[in-house]
Amino acid sequence: MKRLALKFGGTSVGTVEKIKNVANIVKKRHSEGNEIIVVVSAMSGTTDELIKKSNSISKNFDNSELDVLLSSGEQVSSSLLSGAIIDLGLKARSWLGWQIPIITNDNHTSSQITKIKTDEILNFISHGGIAVVAGFQGISSSNRITTLGRGGSDLSAVAIAKFFGADSCEIYTDVEGVLTTDPSINKKAKTIDKISYEEMLEMASLGAKVMQPNAVQAAMTDDIPVNVRSTFSENSGTKIIPESEIDYKKVVTGVAYSKNNAKVSIVGVIDKPGVAADIFEPIGKNNINIDMVIQNTSFDGKKANITFTIKREDLEKTLNLIEKNKQKINYNKVVHDDKLAKVSIIGAGMIANPGVTHKMFRSLADEKINILAISTSEIKISVLIREELTQKAVKILHETFGLN
Amino acid sequence: MKRLALKFGGTSVGTVEKIKNVANIVKKRHSEGNEIIVVVSAMSGTTDELIKKSNSISKNFDNSELDVLLSSGEQVSSSLLSGAIIDLGLKARSWLGWQIPIITNDNHTSSQITKIKTDEILNFISHGGIAVVAGFQGISSSNRITTLGRGGSDLSAVAIAKFFGADSCEIYTDVEGVLTTDPSINKKAKTIDKISYEEMLEMASLGAKVMQPNAVQAAMTDDIPVNVRSTFSENSGTKIIPESEIDYKKVVTGVAYSKNNAKVSIVGVIDKPGVAADIFEPIGKNNINIDMVIQNTSFDGKKANITFTIKREDLEKTLNLIEKNKQKINYNKVVHDDKLAKVSIIGAGMIANPGVTHKMFRSLADEKINILAISTSEIKISVLIREELTQKAVKILHETFGLN
Repeated sequence: MKRLALKFGGTSVGTVEKIKNVANIVKKRHSEGNEIIVVVSAMSGTTDELIKKSNSISKNFDNSELDVLLSSGEQVSSSLLSGAIIDLGLKARSWLGWQIPIITNDNHTSSQITKIKTDEILNFISHGGIAVVAGFQGISSSNRITTLGRGGSDLSAVAIAKFFGADSCEIYTDVEGVLTTDPSINKKAKTIDKISYEEMLEMASLGAKVMQPNAVQAAMTDDIPVNVRSTFSENSGTKIIPESEIDYKKVVTGVAYSKNNAKVSIVGVIDKPGVAADIFEPIGKNNINIDMVIQNTSFDGKKANITFTIKREDLEKTLNLIEKNKQKINYNKVVHDDKLAKVSIIGAGMIANPGVTHKMFRSLADEKINILAISTSEIKISVLIREELTQKAVKILHETFGLN
Repeated sequence: MKRLALKFGGTSVGTVEKIKNVANIVKKRHSEGNEIIVVVSAMSGTTDELIKKSNSISKNFDNSELDVLLSSGEQVSSSLLSGAIIDLGLKARSWLGWQIPIITNDNHTSSQITKIKTDEILNFISHGGIAVVAGFQGISSSNRITTLGRGGSDLSAVAIAKFFGADSCEIYTDVEGVLTTDPSINKKAKTIDKISYEEMLEMASLGAKVMQPNAVQAAMTDDIPVNVRSTFSENSGTKIIPESEIDYKKVVTGVAYSKNNAKVSIVGVIDKPGVAADIFEPIGKNNINIDMVIQNTSFDGKKANITFTIKREDLEKTLNLIEKNKQKINYNKVVHDDKLAKVSIIGAGMIANPGVTHKMFRSLADEKINILAISTSEIKISVLIREELTQKAVKILHETFGLN
């Protein structure tokens, strides 16, 4: 007998009909002799609608009340799914965060799970019951509802798998698994059978939306085997497992991209210690995420240029912050470009293959795609290019590295 | 300093704009130096929508899961209202049933409140905070969410007023208070300044929808002064108080009616002990509510006719049950009429005025309205008439008893 944590996302429970479909999947997995704990997201659209309401009430809607508001979405879906499973003749029950309880810190709207009590649910599932846990929510030590941040149900599922010692955590979603690239810009995208936590983390961070990066990180930390698969087909999906268990035949596992990048270059900065800190400190303090950073020394050895990338939506605020600190930073001018994309190849196999970088740049050059910046990690190479070339770049890299 | 329980119904919090309006009312009452505990219903339409979803999942949706589902409505409104009050610069916090807790029995979908813990909220309001309590919901001894039945937020408000020793329970709604009759069929309806619990109970039971009969009963039992008033005006509304505190100048306080009544007559029943039980037992067991009952002995002293009234929607089921028990009951025939209404006059003043009955019947006769059945209590006289004469009857009674 295996113990499974099955997580169903918002699109999987988006309508009453889809909830009935999920109930049937749960019934099937239960009839195979598994102990089942289901984790469920809010019906798709619900959370956005609630956020819209809170914004109409106040631009600074209180975070602890926002958590009370948003957690109602998973309360609805968990009770509807439990009712649907009971209607199929099985024993089922919903559990809200406070009922288990799932204990978190009190960092409202982006809390971290610290502990999950297991005795009640263990007793229930060991007697044939199916536990349906409302994802995304927990409870603070002061008895208030907390939430884990957008997409937090993935995190709930991994944490449930961990604390209940599940044999596997299955993330049911509306795609077939983790794909080699985005099928909406490259029809040749294929489902990846196996991917390492590290690769998945890069894929998720770089734009593959199938699983939240935080949840991948949590699964990696606790060695929870994850299976990303479709709610709407019988296919086995993608297994996310330790790198050591993967036999790498390909150097590159996937091609990811993110649009809406902006590049800012500060030209003619005095080249002295602390200047980078002077630039980036106010930006970081305003919760603006800086991605790539490139520093070039200028020819006379006294002035440098500093270039960095951010999300396009943060550009205006960033430029204002730099302008405000002009005296302190002491630069000649600022230039920027906000029509950029980042395209990345990811693959644990590239650690052992030093020729990958060269091969990537050559294939982009052959397509006349200019590289504006580069950043690398052990298992990833990202390049910044003009946004309108994204599709072309993804297609050629997908082909070059044998993913077609 | 007074302590007030303020209850806002679904139409009072039906939109974001209306929630902001309620926040301003709460702020005003707080600034008058009162300690405030707000009780809030779900936004209008929410509960019906959730019930519709559960019905699409299953015709026999599990009651305990239904309570989880439905209680989400008050979770949404209580958090939005708290956020709106905080946005006005005040200290506020939502409390869900389980957080207080409001303890009920485990009679899911129609639970009774047994206890409310007060220390946390008392501490909060004594330090200037405004507590916003989600109505309609509680928690059973087994830690599961319960609800109090439709309109249960009125009951929550009265119970909160009781356990917190509130000086008054104010029911804010979308009308000006308790009216002498339904303004949609008689424009001369007036707001009643003061009404006794007993009269209000009859009014509510007989169709005045301003407050749930159960909640009136609870207020009467514990002597909680209730004030029904409008969310959308400054008028003082209706005070519901003990009969002894009212100086009755009028014999009749209000005229109520209910449409959709049906009458069933069983003709030629053997007149022997137990026959009424044989007729009504199977009907009662099928949860059909019997209202008026009239039994006539026939001329030969051996056969009787039994007539009773029910809701029109129960007619078919009732006729089937009688048919099924024909042998046991032993009757000649059954006749029925399903286009009937019940019109009632209510007034504690009629105890001391024996002429009321005569006056009522005369005024109906003068309008050529035929009375098909009569039932009376100490403070109420109800007559059954043809449904199409309802408005005419209400108008003449309203005039006859000086309510215009």
